[in-house]
Amino acid sequence: MAERAVVLVSGGLDSAVTLAIAKDAGCECHAISFDYGQRHRVELESASRVSRRARVASHTVVPLDLRIFGSSALTDTIDVPKDRDADTMADGIPITYVPARNLMFLSLAVAHAEVIGAASIYLGVNAVDYSGYPDCRPEFIASFQETANLATRVGVEGGSLAIHAPLMHLAKHEIVQRAADLGVDLSVTVSCYDPDLLGHACGRCDSCQLRRAGFEQAGISDPTRYQQPR
Amino acid sequence: MAERAVVLVSGGLDSAVTLAIAKDAGCECHAISFDYGQRHRVELESASRVSRRARVASHTVVPLDLRIFGSSALTDTIDVPKDRDADTMADGIPITYVPARNLMFLSLAVAHAEVIGAASIYLGVNAVDYSGYPDCRPEFIASFQETANLATRVGVEGGSLAIHAPLMHLAKHEIVQRAADLGVDLSVTVSCYDPDLLGHACGRCDSCQLRRAGFEQAGISDPTRYQQPR
Repeated sequence: MAERAVVLVSGGLDSAVTLAIAKDAGCECHAISFDYGQRHRVELESASRVSRRARVASHTVVPLDLRIFGSSALTDTIDVPKDRDADTMADGIPITYVPARNLMFLSLAVAHAEVIGAASIYLGVNAVDYSGYPDCRPEFIASFQETANLATRVGVEGGSLAIHAPLMHLAKHEIVQRAADLGVDLSVTVSCYDPDLLGHACGRCDSCQLRRAGFEQAGISDPTRYQQPR
Repeated sequence: MAERAVVLVSGGLDSAVTLAIAKDAGCECHAISFDYGQRHRVELESASRVSRRARVASHTVVPLDLRIFGSSALTDTIDVPKDRDADTMADGIPITYVPARNLMFLSLAVAHAEVIGAASIYLGVNAVDYSGYPDCRPEFIASFQETANLATRVGVEGGSLAIHAPLMHLAKHEIVQRAADLGVDLSVTVSCYDPDLLGHACGRCDSCQLRRAGFEQAGISDPTRYQQPR
């Protein structure tokens, strides 16, 4: 029987590739997404499409309204920064940082993994393009894995839970290349922090700029649906 | 200005005493509770009463429906075990264990702490009476603190977040004694896993038995409101 894995699927490019990697590793994949009051609601529709196309064994959407805590451009009405250059992007913790988001999402994924008996969790964090996010760093992932094993039944009764972040050290163009190699249809993914209601990307936020540059560097044509006029 | 602390308040004896300890340490206390689809809904009313009596600076109730994951007597329709002796209670992980619960609750508390600028989180876990729960062990709390500091802004920009579990090594009668010393009114707390709709305790589940024995050993009269007939 295939080993079970819980895969965090946001509907963006990175999580779609991560899901494909988990499948390629032979896992029976159980997708998990979070309805956290994100302003970009099309993300969840995209997560469903990505999960369906990958023929996951299940897809669980967990309601978790982070607006109760406030304080981020992704849930508040703060303007998403646009047209920033690479130096500005790399400077400090971005306003789009959601406090402790990956800590919360991973913790819920651990509960799900424990209930369904999954031995691993996959998530698409990346330390290259998101160096400003504390919870995208490899030292956080390593520490979380240790904590998760202490927190759960598996850690007491033997066995272990592995946290995989296969994109951690890849540049965006390498991620785009992996997608191409694994046959992932990226036209259904939405990476934009500020898409319109149809899921068309703004082309100007940090995430859009990184994604666009990734396609260009990989020499792969960009299937992203951008808003008109650009 | 008093240091801010986030305190996990369930409405039971242990969290009420923990809140009193945080106040006694001079903290400005911000209570956090979780509406996680628990069968014992009176817990949340009790959490509100406990928080009000302690004059907390705020009380946030986070909706987090764990029934989406299933698998525990505290959220499912499995019967809560009753009239078990101490040896049986101490044997293995209890059916009332909720997968990764403290990991999830602490992670959400970290997000709250980060947003309000709290430097510490208090929770009432206890390794003596709840040795069967993986996420009540001191090694879990220590590891979680390390992970939380890596996950958040505070860990990147300097400073630190402390996780306090002041009841960790106390026996139940010592916790009851601390409550008396700190003037905590325990009549408003509900520890029972299976209370009736008025919040009266069953007197027979593991939690009730531990609590009752604690009052007896402390030589303090038990203000718990039990169901009739007992």
